[in-house]
Amino acid sequence: MSIPKKVLNLLKDLIGSENVYTDEAVLYAYSWDSGSLPLFSLFSDKFRFMPEVVVKARCVEDVVNTLKIANQEKIPVTPRGAGTSLSGNCIPVKGGILLDLTSMNEIKEVSPDDRIAVVEPGVVHKNLEEELHEHGMFFPPEPGSADMCTIGGMIANNASGVRACKYGTTRDWVLSLKVALPNGEIIDTGTRALKDASGYNLTQLFIGSEGTLGVIVEAILKLFPLPEHKALIIAGYSSLNEAIKAAQLVLRKLTPSSLELVTEKYVETMNKVLKRLKYPQCKAVIMIEVDGSKHEVEGQVDIVTRGCKTVNPEALEVYWDERDREELWHARHYAGFIILRMFDKAEIKIKAVHIHDVGLPLSKILDYLKFAEEEASKLGISVLPFGHLGDGNLHVNWYVDPQKEIDIQAAIKLTKKLAQKAIELGGTVSAEHGVGALRAPYMKLQHAPLINYMRKIKAVFDPNNIMNPGKLWPEEDEKDFLEKLLEAYHQNA
Amino acid sequence: MSIPKKVLNLLKDLIGSENVYTDEAVLYAYSWDSGSLPLFSLFSDKFRFMPEVVVKARCVEDVVNTLKIANQEKIPVTPRGAGTSLSGNCIPVKGGILLDLTSMNEIKEVSPDDRIAVVEPGVVHKNLEEELHEHGMFFPPEPGSADMCTIGGMIANNASGVRACKYGTTRDWVLSLKVALPNGEIIDTGTRALKDASGYNLTQLFIGSEGTLGVIVEAILKLFPLPEHKALIIAGYSSLNEAIKAAQLVLRKLTPSSLELVTEKYVETMNKVLKRLKYPQCKAVIMIEVDGSKHEVEGQVDIVTRGCKTVNPEALEVYWDERDREELWHARHYAGFIILRMFDKAEIKIKAVHIHDVGLPLSKILDYLKFAEEEASKLGISVLPFGHLGDGNLHVNWYVDPQKEIDIQAAIKLTKKLAQKAIELGGTVSAEHGVGALRAPYMKLQHAPLINYMRKIKAVFDPNNIMNPGKLWPEEDEKDFLEKLLEAYHQNA
Repeated sequence: MSIPKKVLNLLKDLIGSENVYTDEAVLYAYSWDSGSLPLFSLFSDKFRFMPEVVVKARCVEDVVNTLKIANQEKIPVTPRGAGTSLSGNCIPVKGGILLDLTSMNEIKEVSPDDRIAVVEPGVVHKNLEEELHEHGMFFPPEPGSADMCTIGGMIANNASGVRACKYGTTRDWVLSLKVALPNGEIIDTGTRALKDASGYNLTQLFIGSEGTLGVIVEAILKLFPLPEHKALIIAGYSSLNEAIKAAQLVLRKLTPSSLELVTEKYVETMNKVLKRLKYPQCKAVIMIEVDGSKHEVEGQVDIVTRGCKTVNPEALEVYWDERDREELWHARHYAGFIILRMFDKAEIKIKAVHIHDVGLPLSKILDYLKFAEEEASKLGISVLPFGHLGDGNLHVNWYVDPQKEIDIQAAIKLTKKLAQKAIELGGTVSAEHGVGALRAPYMKLQHAPLINYMRKIKAVFDPNNIMNPGKLWPEEDEKDFLEKLLEAYHQNA
Repeated sequence: MSIPKKVLNLLKDLIGSENVYTDEAVLYAYSWDSGSLPLFSLFSDKFRFMPEVVVKARCVEDVVNTLKIANQEKIPVTPRGAGTSLSGNCIPVKGGILLDLTSMNEIKEVSPDDRIAVVEPGVVHKNLEEELHEHGMFFPPEPGSADMCTIGGMIANNASGVRACKYGTTRDWVLSLKVALPNGEIIDTGTRALKDASGYNLTQLFIGSEGTLGVIVEAILKLFPLPEHKALIIAGYSSLNEAIKAAQLVLRKLTPSSLELVTEKYVETMNKVLKRLKYPQCKAVIMIEVDGSKHEVEGQVDIVTRGCKTVNPEALEVYWDERDREELWHARHYAGFIILRMFDKAEIKIKAVHIHDVGLPLSKILDYLKFAEEEASKLGISVLPFGHLGDGNLHVNWYVDPQKEIDIQAAIKLTKKLAQKAIELGGTVSAEHGVGALRAPYMKLQHAPLINYMRKIKAVFDPNNIMNPGKLWPEEDEKDFLEKLLEAYHQNA
């Protein structure tokens, strides 16, 4: 479809022509998300999901005006924050209007006594964090992209990250949303009270709906007192089995703020960029962070180290110093990106990575990792797992040579197998990255009986299906998204 | 309406005639919930919401069969656990079938390594708690009715209680639900993974839906390691203002597992039944419980007592001993019931109580309590507040003389005023007891723009509106539920 000229002019009149973009260069910039960078590097630059127009909303009224026009003309609208999603969540696969919300970035209120903050959707996590620290509070969910990602994007995708083990996901820290619906109506889904039991929880329905129901224009967040002390325990083991066993022993006693797993290739990579400190070069390393008052942290360190020692670690170190912890975490946060760069430098022709994001029952993690390694090696692919072990969220990434067609086809097969296996073991195909376009085909495997109800719920709020269409579930005739990419790759080759 | 004889016979054939009850005595027993006891004591025994038939389900198949028949014949179905709800949540206000789920009470699995339990809806909280303790785990939400209430009822109403301050509500501890829908379809809403970001969260939609969308037939619960140590700090103040200030100081530093407020009338009442220990007889008393490892508890006690001392308490005591804490908590849990008995004994003719359940931003609590006292005294009514101060959930109860008609009318006015004020202050009319029949009229005050969407979501799952009709929102022509009760009272007088 193509947006009629008079509709574009109407948008320009209402939003201001300086906020409505149709230049190809701008549209191109909005055709990716962070997940596209490694994945789409497979493909020709000609293959993009371009919007037809980008609207940069400055206020609620801009959002409402855009939605009303789009709803009347049945034009797709894809809301977007910082674009740091990893599953094509904010890529405009059906074209139409890209609604950029990054300019709506005011922190409207911080109330430590009420433990709440009121923010616009475009507020960047890092900026919020800095302001909250001044009040002695924090907003616990912290995705790997915390330096860049927006709170609106976090809510739309139910993002989480390394602190979810103790603090849960974004879902647990949102009290109410102000949402603009496709018909232009504004609704408030909750209140400023910390607890609520008054009918269907629409706040929870909108969280994780990936922009398919409406546009979040304001959020009331729940805050937590900033812990005064932290400690990071790093333990290295000679096998995955032992590392997971140690983690399980710890989790039977307490819930650390983070409990991460990194495997040897990541350790090697992180140690190449770390100057002063090093991770122990072991097969499997667990990183456990605890927080609280001085007393609390000391007590937790004692329990954690006792748990870790029970399984004969090859290395065990406790880091109390903030600078040490920050350096080590920094390397961990960027491990995935560093590893790509290392590959490049070594001139190993492995440039494409696909990030799996399964959630598993803790007792099934070892089985799953074994399965992944076996299946990958059959297909001649490298899988490198790491992840948020404490809550069962693993990123089992694969790396392929983009020059070899056979590898890509094998990788697509592997992706499906890994999704299927996670479901078989009682898990989910996405624990924190969301479904987006990339995982839409796997929703049929996981949620087949629910998709019908999800579609009907969407129709309650978005009867014309204008909100971020092509996401969350496959359309009737839809092929696997990766297969479509592959086809495009051939056409453009 | 009346259920046709052949439909009753079909039910008896499918479920077994020994599980299908139509005797008046049985129907009568299912015409109340726990909230009715004090409230309905106002009214003649002739005024009841009686079901036409009670079906005692033994298994999923019984539920499915009942729903299919009811859906075909458009007969209302009200699911019921232990009936400990306080807002008429499980009272069959439209007659029809009462579906008793208490016989489906198997704990199907406890997996400490996965931190999950799988239970049927009729499992009693206390029984689950006992089994979990053997595994060193617990299920954190703990309503006042924990000795009797069922897990299914807790989920349907998003119950919480004294531990919500740190651990949140039932909503935070459910990973997946198996739900029987009116059409007989069974859906699983989630997985066994601790984290999930795969489309609309239907688990969260069903939690708190009060049996209006389907029947919960199984739940996967999230568990937490049982804290090894606890301590209870009790501080008494000469004013509400000081007690709230002390609580706020504590909450700026940490999140205790419980932070309760009791006011002087309750203190007096509790002390009359306590033998060995006494609460300090002050205007306002706060009870703060902390839990964790020995180290953690010591650290938290230190922070809490320092916070409490800052505001010059009249009394301050730390209870480390389990027996002491249990005695004190026991009195607190039953304070509401004890106070009724005390009134009776004193032959003060005050027999009816209405339990408010507002949730408020913490900074508004003092304003709200002042308002409640002023408005009540204008109307000649006693209000006695207590509640879960740490999460802003107050129970501002009123007590009236059932012999005086003027008091009842005044009480109804007051109830509406208190609901309105909570909303004005950014709060909710129900923080943990749910909407049920009692608060349905106030949903219009709080959620007017949302009710339309909630109705449509109900229609997605329950197009014939058979599931617990007459709850959550007022019907078009509906009067205030309390007004209806009053009318019935006059008719029967």
